[in-house]
Amino acid sequence: MTITMYDLAGAEADRRFSPFCWRIKMALAHKGLAVETVPWRFTEKDKLPQPNAGRVPVIADGDRVVHDSTAIADYLEERYPDRPSLFGGASGRALTRFVQNWTETVLQSGLIRLVVLDILRHCAPQDQAYFRRSREERFGATLEDVVRDRDARLPAFRASLDPLRRTVERQDFVCGSTPAYADYVVFGAFQWARAISDFELLAAGDPIGVWRRRMLALFDGLARRAPAYGG
Amino acid sequence: MTITMYDLAGAEADRRFSPFCWRIKMALAHKGLAVETVPWRFTEKDKLPQPNAGRVPVIADGDRVVHDSTAIADYLEERYPDRPSLFGGASGRALTRFVQNWTETVLQSGLIRLVVLDILRHCAPQDQAYFRRSREERFGATLEDVVRDRDARLPAFRASLDPLRRTVERQDFVCGSTPAYADYVVFGAFQWARAISDFELLAAGDPIGVWRRRMLALFDGLARRAPAYGG
Repeated sequence: MTITMYDLAGAEADRRFSPFCWRIKMALAHKGLAVETVPWRFTEKDKLPQPNAGRVPVIADGDRVVHDSTAIADYLEERYPDRPSLFGGASGRALTRFVQNWTETVLQSGLIRLVVLDILRHCAPQDQAYFRRSREERFGATLEDVVRDRDARLPAFRASLDPLRRTVERQDFVCGSTPAYADYVVFGAFQWARAISDFELLAAGDPIGVWRRRMLALFDGLARRAPAYGG
Repeated sequence: MTITMYDLAGAEADRRFSPFCWRIKMALAHKGLAVETVPWRFTEKDKLPQPNAGRVPVIADGDRVVHDSTAIADYLEERYPDRPSLFGGASGRALTRFVQNWTETVLQSGLIRLVVLDILRHCAPQDQAYFRRSREERFGATLEDVVRDRDARLPAFRASLDPLRRTVERQDFVCGSTPAYADYVVFGAFQWARAISDFELLAAGDPIGVWRRRMLALFDGLARRAPAYGG
């Protein structure tokens, strides 16, 4: 049976830019599970199935509703144990959490300060005031001010990716010779940026760019075919 | 048969402060393997068994000599597959590399800029000129200058540990409910600092401090019993 997933969309319904939703779209493809996505906007809190926390992804699998990307990944692993594993066992799952915590505290936190104004430009009209207000409150600055010196901050952002860079320089994927959930977590952040911004995050020849191309090619180019900028 | 390990020592032969050696001492204990350590100084390049790269750890297991902590961990996992696993499978090993790359590019690289002068103070007399010259060349500054503003840099160092902090706040060990090699890699850095410095790396109540105490208690207090400062 096809799983339904509520997926953050922009002004164009097929431009999907949530890093958390991308984690799960890749995880569903990894498990070989069919999915039908429902475009969802920030301000459509009441359109999500219960229970939810007002955020996506939310999936409905038959009559089971699961929200929060981490909970969804855990659910998929337990519900579909005979499909390819997302974690490769208990240690793999625990270590994936470290990669996820790095992604959220370093990568995504650095990224949003580079592209947050590009996100605003792609938000649906009904989402724009909400997005600006909530993010400006979080940053304590206007979105224009947040990104104003982004070129100057780019070298430090690139340097902060050293743990990832060194890893994918020495092995094809974060999870080794084949990709798994930790790769999707990290990739979700890059696909988020790619969906809404043409800002060049990586220098030419960066091994992370090579890994990103490998990720874009997975599952018949699932992420590459999605509306996005180059890279 | 007892494994022999060449282990970096200070002016006091039992003060052992190499983060890479600590990784392997913890890994050997994890595997339940007996080890006899040989104190070794930076300038004793010719005292290591062949082959080596002029650095420790080097182990001799019967007539097999292995050098480089990563190669040694891989060797132990393959040579002693029936003992508790250091990685928990192929994904776990690959993900451990990410934690290791984070440890080396963020944690150890931040740490040495805080405690490098304390290392010098604990080096054996015959090592001090070598240590100062090689490290000052690496930093392009005197060791005194490297650490001069360490109090001012402490908040940024602590913030850089967020991926680790968030992980051990939510699970007992980096590797989940029980420790494994990724924990030893991260812990090696803290034990390195602890062996030679009383500088307070962590704020009171930091979840990383709670995890560090768990690590110090492992294997009957193997690391806690070693000559070191408090913490």
